[in-house]
Amino acid sequence: MTELGSNRYGKQAIRLVRVVRGPVHRVRDLTVDVSLEGVFGAAFTDGDNSSVVATDTMKNTVYALAPDHLDGAIETFGIALARHFLDAGPVERATITIREHAWEPLETDEGPAPDAFRRMGGATRTAVATADADGVTVDSGVEDLVVMKTTRSAFSGFPRDRYTTLAEVRDRIMATRATVTWRNGDVPADWDARHAALVRTLQATFATHHSESVQHSIWVIGTAMLDAEPGISEVTMAMPNLHHWLVDLSPFGGTNEGEIFVATTQPHGQIEATVRRSASA
Amino acid sequence: MTELGSNRYGKQAIRLVRVVRGPVHRVRDLTVDVSLEGVFGAAFTDGDNSSVVATDTMKNTVYALAPDHLDGAIETFGIALARHFLDAGPVERATITIREHAWEPLETDEGPAPDAFRRMGGATRTAVATADADGVTVDSGVEDLVVMKTTRSAFSGFPRDRYTTLAEVRDRIMATRATVTWRNGDVPADWDARHAALVRTLQATFATHHSESVQHSIWVIGTAMLDAEPGISEVTMAMPNLHHWLVDLSPFGGTNEGEIFVATTQPHGQIEATVRRSASA
Amino acid sequence: MTELGSNRYGKQAIRLVRVVRGPVHRVRDLTVDVSLEGVFGAAFTDGDNSSVVATDTMKNTVYALAPDHLDGAIETFGIALARHFLDAGPVERATITIREHAWEPLETDEGPAPDAFRRMGGATRTAVATADADGVTVDSGVEDLVVMKTTRSAFSGFPRDRYTTLAEVRDRIMATRATVTWRNGDVPADWDARHAALVRTLQATFATHHSESVQHSIWVIGTAMLDAEPGISEVTMAMPNLHHWLVDLSPFGGTNEGEIFVATTQPHGQIEATVRRSASA
Amino acid sequence: MTELGSNRYGKQAIRLVRVVRGPVHRVRDLTVDVSLEGVFGAAFTDGDNSSVVATDTMKNTVYALAPDHLDGAIETFGIALARHFLDAGPVERATITIREHAWEPLETDEGPAPDAFRRMGGATRTAVATADADGVTVDSGVEDLVVMKTTRSAFSGFPRDRYTTLAEVRDRIMATRATVTWRNGDVPADWDARHAALVRTLQATFATHHSESVQHSIWVIGTAMLDAEPGISEVTMAMPNLHHWLVDLSPFGGTNEGEIFVATTQPHGQIEATVRRSASA
Repeated sequence: MTELGSNRYGKQAIRLVRVVRGPVHRVRDLTVDVSLEGVFGAAFTDGDNSSVVATDTMKNTVYALAPDHLDGAIETFGIALARHFLDAGPVERATITIREHAWEPLETDEGPAPDAFRRMGGATRTAVATADADGVTVDSGVEDLVVMKTTRSAFSGFPRDRYTTLAEVRDRIMATRATVTWRNGDVPADWDARHAALVRTLQATFATHHSESVQHSIWVIGTAMLDAEPGISEVTMAMPNLHHWLVDLSPFGGTNEGEIFVATTQPHGQIEATVRRSASA
Repeated sequence: MTELGSNRYGKQAIRLVRVVRGPVHRVRDLTVDVSLEGVFGAAFTDGDNSSVVATDTMKNTVYALAPDHLDGAIETFGIALARHFLDAGPVERATITIREHAWEPLETDEGPAPDAFRRMGGATRTAVATADADGVTVDSGVEDLVVMKTTRSAFSGFPRDRYTTLAEVRDRIMATRATVTWRNGDVPADWDARHAALVRTLQATFATHHSESVQHSIWVIGTAMLDAEPGISEVTMAMPNLHHWLVDLSPFGGTNEGEIFVATTQPHGQIEATVRRSASA
Repeated sequence: MTELGSNRYGKQAIRLVRVVRGPVHRVRDLTVDVSLEGVFGAAFTDGDNSSVVATDTMKNTVYALAPDHLDGAIETFGIALARHFLDAGPVERATITIREHAWEPLETDEGPAPDAFRRMGGATRTAVATADADGVTVDSGVEDLVVMKTTRSAFSGFPRDRYTTLAEVRDRIMATRATVTWRNGDVPADWDARHAALVRTLQATFATHHSESVQHSIWVIGTAMLDAEPGISEVTMAMPNLHHWLVDLSPFGGTNEGEIFVATTQPHGQIEATVRRSASA
Repeated sequence: MTELGSNRYGKQAIRLVRVVRGPVHRVRDLTVDVSLEGVFGAAFTDGDNSSVVATDTMKNTVYALAPDHLDGAIETFGIALARHFLDAGPVERATITIREHAWEPLETDEGPAPDAFRRMGGATRTAVATADADGVTVDSGVEDLVVMKTTRSAFSGFPRDRYTTLAEVRDRIMATRATVTWRNGDVPADWDARHAALVRTLQATFATHHSESVQHSIWVIGTAMLDAEPGISEVTMAMPNLHHWLVDLSPFGGTNEGEIFVATTQPHGQIEATVRRSASA
């Protein structure tokens, strides 16, 4: 005898661009994922689709709700979509994941263009809104934030066994492509301002702290973000360690005092952790 | 006050090729990820690395253990690695994820070459071995298995709201890039044979069933796999729905009776579920 | 004063799937690029589009011509498309590039499924048809053919300067992701048979020859292909050298007699050459 | 009888990071490709490597020359490398391709960090230095520059045949991921200043002109760049047309006056052209 375990379904990679027109245009460029959980057992076991909102309908809904609801932060749009889908049939949880790809005005001789833009690249802003019977939870964050410290990063004092060859180092490059999210404990007056403030704290703390390891950095950065913003309850970070290895120039008669590196991505360290307010706090 | 929540760390994308030499060579081509959980709090909060096995050591260990332990299925190698790392310091759970990239001998006039190979492409075999105080759990599977049904797939009877435009269809293409894993309830005599048998059942069931939806297909396939192999306890499938849209040829004076399609990947449906033996079974 | 230099335009990444129906279905899965050259100067200099076939029209044409012309090899379809576009306006050269993604029937208990398929992965078949006033030229080939020799490959006798550290080696792994094309000097009775025969020769020669370098392998393989098939006039190969480095296991008390390697892709060698029939031949 | 046609070889994807240390650090992050052409026939036909500079030596050379030669623009480093390799054995042409990945200082409370950086994303600066008996040619440029015009872009007046369904449009979104290179006719006093000035002209012209087609835009932009900088002789642009399709909201009771779009990448237009100074100029 078999039974259905956990399951979910939805539509991914819905590419939505909104041009907000006026004297000065604004470009909103989103990738939206919709995922629903609920009592969908009959669809699986009986092929009964009477409760299965078509993923094509999800896509249509994202576009249809954009004119009225994508007029502020992606968190607001995500909340509206999550609530909409929670009301659809036997849905018990609706999760909306949004990535926003930033565009900035192009510079002209007359200043920033009102109607021409450049995709900024670099980090992508993210928001995940989850609606269920308990209400709506919103995680905000940033992904693909590639940052590097060229000093004040060490890794030493680690255990050595028969398979350990890594040298202790008190000054190394630390580079990562960070994914960072934080859980919002409230609805702020200004999502954009909160996001900007937290990314500023994240970056400034990354820049200025002395790191004993990626783990240590995650703790220091996460703590600083929680201290900076009372409205968030936890910070989760995934930080690959993108190794930069010092090149041995001695065969060529050269020296290399921390100047010349080979950048690698395979293999890479991967460190992930959540830092949160203590229950007693 | 802040505290550390869940956390893990390790090394990813360790690329290991073993050439098993003899009259006929065999190529084993793996990508290995190592991930550890345990009592690593001091590394975060105090920058104390005295318990932090370096991820470089993890990489070395994978290569060092390959001669003795990579002589059978990737499940066996994964178990050996997971057990090894569980003994390292304050580790409470060690998870080894292995992907095997298959190579087949090249054909020559004298038959299959003993020492030249072609990477097969198509699906990748996977194994995840997790060791903790309760023992070792092994999930086996396959990813990037791209399959298509050109008939006997339907999607109809779904609810219609103001945002629904999708037509009901009793005969469509269904295509997916499936990721399928199953939990092994025992250690089989032959991991390779179990894997081959389950992939055969998976593919044959995909081919022959009448599908009312991707959800329905997951149920039918998962049930067939559980029926075929008493040694597994559950099957988890992630099946993106890679839509193939019928091209309207009528503007060009043509007809299109299910012949000409545009294949798309953005957006795509995404359906994920676990099918398992009933607790009462 | 400025003038227009070389230019071309077209539509890329047209994804076309044809299901040939009957008692047994067949799946044709193509990615088609169209590129046109001709007297399009006014479009550039004057913004005059009166001769500019819309790339959207190119896309439509590919779908519209598929029912009648995609009934054989991709070379045949490419020729039909190239000729069609050569007749459009001021076109002087039309180039059609087609990649075919192979699907094979899934196995069932009753034999190969008539209507369910698995994408094979591995190498992709390619064809490029170019039509101009001189007629049509057709190049056929294969790309992303990943092959490896586990012995009978050497690299030694190369010059050494102050920057050379590579050791001479008489037995190494040679692996590549080859792109191979050949120019057809005629229209064969059976494009598929020619393609199969040449890939067979390519693979068998790769497998059996003794290689002194990737350059040497290209020569030996290209010569074998030209010898095997009088209907082709030249063979062009691009072979990245995907290095496999022997892992030093001695720090761990192990030995490594050509067994354990780390597979890398960055950096990689890149060797490209054409082998052709001599003018005097 | 077979003979060797055109051929070249080298090393690609050499990942080099230089940290220029001082009171304020600077990060140089390059990907370097080396490619050589020359009289290498014996390597192919006879397996004679006596003239074949190992690609591993090329990689070493890039790192070894970085301390002395990577102290300015990538053009300067490329020229030094190209000249170095031209002197190696039977080389007739050495081509060095460099991509520079930009990093900017992280902001802290005390201003820009001296030793922590963020990878900027967005466009990549490129340089190609080619040395042969005639001297050194340098092409500079930018790739993956993603830009969009939200108005002042049209496409109309194109020919209509039986396969044309595209509507004429006088106001559309135009978006592209541009690759732009220019040939330097001289060695400027300041490579960085020239690059910055030309990108500024490129972007400002893209922003402000009225576009009748991508072809028209290429001409207008290329002409503006040639006018702005007498030291360059030609500009080559490759501009995919990344279509943004207006979503039909009428089934949902909505209107869509150029506000809501679906962004696509498959298929895409592809327009490529060179604009150069007239021979008589």
